Amino acid sequence: MTFGIVGLGLMGGGFARAIRRAASSSGRLAEAGWSEASESEIFACDTRADVLEAALAEGVIDGAFSMQNAAAMLKKCSMVFVCVYPDAAFSFIKEHAADFAPDAIVTDIAGVKGSEVAECEAACPQYIAGHPMAGSDREGFGHSDTVHFEGRNYIVIPRSVASSASHEAGQLSDVERLERFKTIIRALGFGQIIETTAKTHDSKIAFTSQLCHVIASALVDSAEDERVTEFGGGSFEDLTRIAMINAPLWTELFLSNKDALLPHVDTFLDSMQKFRAAIADDDAGSLEKYLAAVRTRRALMRKTESRAESK
Amino acid sequence: MTFGIVGLGLMGGGFARAIRRAASSSGRLAEAGWSEASESEIFACDTRADVLEAALAEGVIDGAFSMQNAAAMLKKCSMVFVCVYPDAAFSFIKEHAADFAPDAIVTDIAGVKGSEVAECEAACPQYIAGHPMAGSDREGFGHSDTVHFEGRNYIVIPRSVASSASHEAGQLSDVERLERFKTIIRALGFGQIIETTAKTHDSKIAFTSQLCHVIASALVDSAEDERVTEFGGGSFEDLTRIAMINAPLWTELFLSNKDALLPHVDTFLDSMQKFRAAIADDDAGSLEKYLAAVRTRRALMRKTESRAESK
Repeated sequence: MTFGIVGLGLMGGGFARAIRRAASSSGRLAEAGWSEASESEIFACDTRADVLEAALAEGVIDGAFSMQNAAAMLKKCSMVFVCVYPDAAFSFIKEHAADFAPDAIVTDIAGVKGSEVAECEAACPQYIAGHPMAGSDREGFGHSDTVHFEGRNYIVIPRSVASSASHEAGQLSDVERLERFKTIIRALGFGQIIETTAKTHDSKIAFTSQLCHVIASALVDSAEDERVTEFGGGSFEDLTRIAMINAPLWTELFLSNKDALLPHVDTFLDSMQKFRAAIADDDAGSLEKYLAAVRTRRALMRKTESRAESK
Repeated sequence: MTFGIVGLGLMGGGFARAIRRAASSSGRLAEAGWSEASESEIFACDTRADVLEAALAEGVIDGAFSMQNAAAMLKKCSMVFVCVYPDAAFSFIKEHAADFAPDAIVTDIAGVKGSEVAECEAACPQYIAGHPMAGSDREGFGHSDTVHFEGRNYIVIPRSVASSASHEAGQLSDVERLERFKTIIRALGFGQIIETTAKTHDSKIAFTSQLCHVIASALVDSAEDERVTEFGGGSFEDLTRIAMINAPLWTELFLSNKDALLPHVDTFLDSMQKFRAAIADDDAGSLEKYLAAVRTRRALMRKTESRAESK
């Protein structure tokens, strides 16, 4: 196996490190029956030569390519993770559609999918959209060891545009490609793999991820001063950990998924107003009823999480 | 030392356990120079006989009293933690003001202070208001081992009503009582002790704790279904962990501190609307600027937290 990473930032670096572990002689790829896993190579291309040099020196990657020379890397790779920002990732996949090896698996990690997935599927028969539910409050390759995949969810979007028709005899079918993709994702340490559509992905992620980032940001924004955490008991800290936000990336994510995000924002604001009204009206009966329902609901959600973890 | 716990629930049980550890022959009370610490006794009174029996059987307490017989316990105690709900705690302290030992330290753990602190101070010269910034998503004595005090903040409200005038010669002065209180709190594992007024406490806690609980509850309330956590990457889970909420307790906390809480709710809603408008208007420039400011602000808050931890 030859793995290619496009964009060796926080997530690209995280993937390179996880692949290195999975491909060791005692790693999960060997366990999964891939006898040649330990001979795997990891290549990366990036705009920053210093990052590539650091990764080579650390032994995280085996070969480095400039972005101009990406095609030379792509044709060697049996699996390519495109780990640049969403818009750039979709553009890259479409522009380089002819450069990928016929039997390769090509995937992105974009947090919003939209109509881009169908376009990339049409342009690139080797493409399967994915979204690792993992991250860090740091940025860049230098912090990529803070990204942990162990047990985290991975959302996979099986192709809606069939690629088999464009395939030569003997090449991977869509089904085989998806199975191989999932085997690798599991070997990287991820827990549950959720298969869904681009539309469902965007709607659910708008709630579980983007709305939460808006809330955390608004909460930090609304603090009267920065010393308020001296009075913290963990609640504010828990709610705002994700406010250590990558501004350009999340601006892109919020705006490109605004059609799914805004309705969730409004539903949340309605709930806030419901609680606000009960407090303002001294309506202990309603408030206690709402809170009891929230507790029941959150407990059911906890079961859903555990189910996900146990798979 | 004889410690008394009024209300052996989650927090009362947590205090009993922490006192037991601190008072062991190698514990922090002995370290702090209290040579007789290991001879300390822990008493508790509660409405539930089964809870008292369980705590006695487990060795968490040394003596049990019914609530009707609380006075018999109080007069033996050199330190009393009143760990019932806020309104009940303030009533208890005022009703039993004559039952506490003259040199005792009497404290509560109520999450809202309001005008009750001054009333309790006036009624009970031994009283110092406090608020441990710790808790659990569980309830009751049976889960009191899930409460962890190590390194957490403790808010202490030095008396505004001087008690020295009412004291006999040879008794503890307010200053001595406060110092002894803080020594014990540190021995229980707490990190930074913040001294403030009841008013500042209520205003800050309305933001760092109560607003966060309203937000977490509204977020769970606004979820379209309970299976949404299958798409979770940790953000929603972090933001809603505290939504495992004790409905009667938090109803009381929200309503008794509504004058401080509602302005924070409104400021937060204003911030949400600011972010919402930037998203709705595709205003990438403003959004990126807001998010960058949030990141800077949260990083400064992180320094405040670390400062608190290092003290």
